[in-house]
Amino acid sequence: MDISDLKRMLIGEPFPTSQEIHERLDKVRALAVFASDPISSNAYATEAIMSVLIVLGSGALSLTMPLGLAVAGLVTLVVFSYIQTIMHYPMGGGAYMVSKDNLGTLPSLFAAGALLTDYILTVSVSVSAGVRAVTSAFPELFEYRVIIALTAIMLITWINLRGVRESGTIFAIPTYAFVVGVWVVLVIGLVRYFGFFEAAPIPVFEETTPAVVSATGFAYVWILLRAFAGGCTALTGIEAISDGVQAFKPPESKNAAKTMLVMAVMAMSLFIGITFLSTHIGMIPHEGESVLSQMTRRVTGGGFIYYWVQFFTATILFLAANTGYQDFPRVSSFLARDLYMPRWLQNRGDRLVFSSGIIVLAAIAALIVIVFQANEIAMLPLYAIGVMLSFSLSQTGMFRLMGRIAHLKPGETLRTQVTEVHYERNVMWKRALNALGAVVTFTVFLVLLFTKFLEGAWLVAVLIPVLVFAFLTVHRHYERVAEALSTKDLKAEELTEVANVVVVPIADVHRGTLLALQYAKRFSSDVRALSVTTSDEQRERLMRRWERFPEVTSDITLVTIDYDYRDILRPIIRYIELLNNEEFSNKLTTVVVPEFVPEHQAARILHNQTANRLRSRLKHYKDIVIIDVPFHIDSKL
Amino acid sequence: MDISDLKRMLIGEPFPTSQEIHERLDKVRALAVFASDPISSNAYATEAIMSVLIVLGSGALSLTMPLGLAVAGLVTLVVFSYIQTIMHYPMGGGAYMVSKDNLGTLPSLFAAGALLTDYILTVSVSVSAGVRAVTSAFPELFEYRVIIALTAIMLITWINLRGVRESGTIFAIPTYAFVVGVWVVLVIGLVRYFGFFEAAPIPVFEETTPAVVSATGFAYVWILLRAFAGGCTALTGIEAISDGVQAFKPPESKNAAKTMLVMAVMAMSLFIGITFLSTHIGMIPHEGESVLSQMTRRVTGGGFIYYWVQFFTATILFLAANTGYQDFPRVSSFLARDLYMPRWLQNRGDRLVFSSGIIVLAAIAALIVIVFQANEIAMLPLYAIGVMLSFSLSQTGMFRLMGRIAHLKPGETLRTQVTEVHYERNVMWKRALNALGAVVTFTVFLVLLFTKFLEGAWLVAVLIPVLVFAFLTVHRHYERVAEALSTKDLKAEELTEVANVVVVPIADVHRGTLLALQYAKRFSSDVRALSVTTSDEQRERLMRRWERFPEVTSDITLVTIDYDYRDILRPIIRYIELLNNEEFSNKLTTVVVPEFVPEHQAARILHNQTANRLRSRLKHYKDIVIIDVPFHIDSKL
Repeated sequence: MDISDLKRMLIGEPFPTSQEIHERLDKVRALAVFASDPISSNAYATEAIMSVLIVLGSGALSLTMPLGLAVAGLVTLVVFSYIQTIMHYPMGGGAYMVSKDNLGTLPSLFAAGALLTDYILTVSVSVSAGVRAVTSAFPELFEYRVIIALTAIMLITWINLRGVRESGTIFAIPTYAFVVGVWVVLVIGLVRYFGFFEAAPIPVFEETTPAVVSATGFAYVWILLRAFAGGCTALTGIEAISDGVQAFKPPESKNAAKTMLVMAVMAMSLFIGITFLSTHIGMIPHEGESVLSQMTRRVTGGGFIYYWVQFFTATILFLAANTGYQDFPRVSSFLARDLYMPRWLQNRGDRLVFSSGIIVLAAIAALIVIVFQANEIAMLPLYAIGVMLSFSLSQTGMFRLMGRIAHLKPGETLRTQVTEVHYERNVMWKRALNALGAVVTFTVFLVLLFTKFLEGAWLVAVLIPVLVFAFLTVHRHYERVAEALSTKDLKAEELTEVANVVVVPIADVHRGTLLALQYAKRFSSDVRALSVTTSDEQRERLMRRWERFPEVTSDITLVTIDYDYRDILRPIIRYIELLNNEEFSNKLTTVVVPEFVPEHQAARILHNQTANRLRSRLKHYKDIVIIDVPFHIDSKL
Repeated sequence: MDISDLKRMLIGEPFPTSQEIHERLDKVRALAVFASDPISSNAYATEAIMSVLIVLGSGALSLTMPLGLAVAGLVTLVVFSYIQTIMHYPMGGGAYMVSKDNLGTLPSLFAAGALLTDYILTVSVSVSAGVRAVTSAFPELFEYRVIIALTAIMLITWINLRGVRESGTIFAIPTYAFVVGVWVVLVIGLVRYFGFFEAAPIPVFEETTPAVVSATGFAYVWILLRAFAGGCTALTGIEAISDGVQAFKPPESKNAAKTMLVMAVMAMSLFIGITFLSTHIGMIPHEGESVLSQMTRRVTGGGFIYYWVQFFTATILFLAANTGYQDFPRVSSFLARDLYMPRWLQNRGDRLVFSSGIIVLAAIAALIVIVFQANEIAMLPLYAIGVMLSFSLSQTGMFRLMGRIAHLKPGETLRTQVTEVHYERNVMWKRALNALGAVVTFTVFLVLLFTKFLEGAWLVAVLIPVLVFAFLTVHRHYERVAEALSTKDLKAEELTEVANVVVVPIADVHRGTLLALQYAKRFSSDVRALSVTTSDEQRERLMRRWERFPEVTSDITLVTIDYDYRDILRPIIRYIELLNNEEFSNKLTTVVVPEFVPEHQAARILHNQTANRLRSRLKHYKDIVIIDVPFHIDSKL
């Protein structure tokens, strides 16, 4: 079995490019693929609010519900804005594309850098969180957490490399199972709480914890802001669909918009439901058990539903990583197409996914998991910051776009840089909502950045500008290359000429070198065999053997250089340099290097050390072409 | 500053080959270079005997001196035998050469494998022992022991790369300082012990420790054997000079033999002196402090001489590694010359040392230090076993040689495979001593192997045969290659023909590909540009650009292949395969690959991914020559 069979077995048969449309996602699968991150946020978003408020004492937990509603309001704003984005930018690309079209290059690169950072962290954080769920259940696995996390990353990478439709199918089950499980808990909980159908009421323990701090004025507002910012983790991944509109079956925009709406309703029903129920039955966040787990246990009294929810919570935390796998490669491919990242990131693999992007993502995320030892608590301060910046940029961009649309008259069309927009009604309203969204998300961005700055957020504040700088560097490089390669105004006679000379460095006369010499003779009448001799006997031996094959050697000049050092590459390179600089300056000079190719890879260490070094040193010369003439040795090592 | 300036700075100016004779060692330097291992053995050899005997109670320590004398007797035998070797094999190579000449290939490879294993361990063990001396003095450095050990290896490697004469100069000081220091201690000690010059007697404490085991019969003999074997660590490195006869100034054999004699006297005077004094003033081995340190402290009462000896003990333990650096590269070069190891191991570097061997040794020794975490106690069971095997083989070989010399009459000369011997007197006596030496060292080999088998010696018992197998494999490979390359009975018309066709895979028409096409046209009238197109627009665009440069493209066939997958290498390779198998079967087919060469290494990741993959996949084909036509891009990234 060779490497390509193995690849086939792991990844599956390649799909033809024309089949791309069949690999698109229907809405049910798309929801599973893109929504795992925002839906999984419900495992911790309510708790994130409560665990800030608790410093003000358990009495302050009553503020959870209003803050939750505010978060839900913000989600509504953001979702609304992204649905607009999807409808106006059907090619996908989300915040990057909107910023590029409306705000210019630099903001778009910031949006992209922020998104890419966040997608990498999505993978590292959610896989680590999934591992924590596993090691909470089986503490003896704790010391293997990094290995488990890396295995999970490999598994998710593998599934994603098999194609988006297949991963959609696989990931649909746990996503829907989690949603349905929590819904069932919420329904039971609400029925019992309100005493419908004469259900047994939920026991409510009124624990009170005293305030850790007593805050007034600015400090109080600051704590509320932090609680609100904590709740905003529920927003992460909500933009995912806007990046991948082209993953949907046609009509892409409509299907994507509908899916986004369903996702938002689903995620928000969970969020508001969990927030309402857990605060009203007096849940208090503490280290040992998550609020969701406490609530489920209290409502169902343990048992099957409890374990169902727990199991699928762990699973969906793992799967939230998948949102990163969907969008990192897509956003990268957009950047690669615009020449801000290596061009090969836009290549689709055998199964029509952006394989290179998937592998790059997996590698970086794995590195982060190793550095942070799969401790997601340590990574959390880095997380969700980037996405807020991209929200804010994206909504600012939409605000601008709406401003341009506002000038259109009914029936008029405006071609922007990347899309086409038409007259719309209620543009001013939409614009106002975009403005509000931009301001609120930017505020949340600042709150997150400052509250977590010393815990690690500074890293993100450094990383995003560094990424932007890298994008610009890559871009400048590609631009220069394009200029260098341009055939504009090129006249054929400007091309570098080819010198009529071939140099063949040889150490001895044997079948391998004779073959190389014969090859060289085919395309030049001026072949020079070049040999460095370190003793008289060696030179004489060479001459004797040389004269034995006049059929090959007769038209060839044999140049021997006596040399009293062992570094025989130096005189060879000096000779070629002189030839190239003086005798044939500004012409392509050809060097033929005889090369042994043993059957076994392992045998390579026994050969070619000199040839390899010669090749790597000649590589830096501008006008030298190196030809390896292979001589295959059929030895079984 | 480029890489070659850096090399010059680190290693020094290259020496011409003809200057080799000036780089040879005089006797003073040679002693320092080769004797560091046997002399440093005195830091622990006596203790090695005592720490076995102590299990029989402190009373049994009185057996140390007789055992020490037995070891000294064995050393005399071995030294005598090696002096014979040096005189009869002036080319060096020690046990390997003797076994090869007298016992055949397989024994010689076992001798070589055993020696190489031991030289590697010499480096790992002695560097680690040196680090232990340092961390005993400064316990806070203990956690950095691996780093310190690796730094020491790098340092010794560097000094050795600078040339043998220079390293001899550097290593002379600590070697002689150690010897003189211990001699001074011994003289003071003996003077005080015997009460000469009315010196103050050494306080003798008569501690008694009870026997840990009470052994009789076989068990008793076994313990004595183990104690004796422990003392035999004093023999390690004693053969070093015989491997490196050619490192001496002429007359090589005489100088080497004299140096060996001086070394033996020096090492044995230390060994017997330390053994006598330490047992007679009642030293008892214990974990906290070495016997040599105890003895020095008791004799000198601490103070300057004590610290001198301690300091140079640590230094010479580090330097014992140098014996490995002298002989591993030499023995490897002999094996490489006989084609049992990669041929490049016989190349001398800029400073006329076997640089490749030095670097290979450093790499393996460093690996072992990392694996064993610089814990030399764990490595010791592996150590000194190989060297005993090589002693035994070497003396058996000399026994055979003496037998052959015995048949000569005065004035007669015998040419063996590698050397020339003459009539000698007293041959039967020499023969008997060789036989005795061979039996004793083989016994010690077996005792070491069995007593330490489970502690790790099994690894050596596995490793040496594996090495021998590797030598034979390499040899067979080189033999087959020589056969394949042989020009014996070669007729010129048998050489593979060169097909008159050139394939140039191109993705687009730009300056880089035009250059490659122009180059291809120089040496074939049948140039085929090959392009894989994945859409109609792409094909049309290509055609349009193709027609813009008739000066270049007019005589070239443009082959386009429509392809519905992304793996565009597949159709390219299939086309070349077909061409090579059918149209031009059994002829060398040429493929020209345009290649970008950006100025910055870092920019490579942005280019050539397809070209590199194509090249590595075509490498496996037998009759395909790949030409990279470089297109340099002078961009500042």
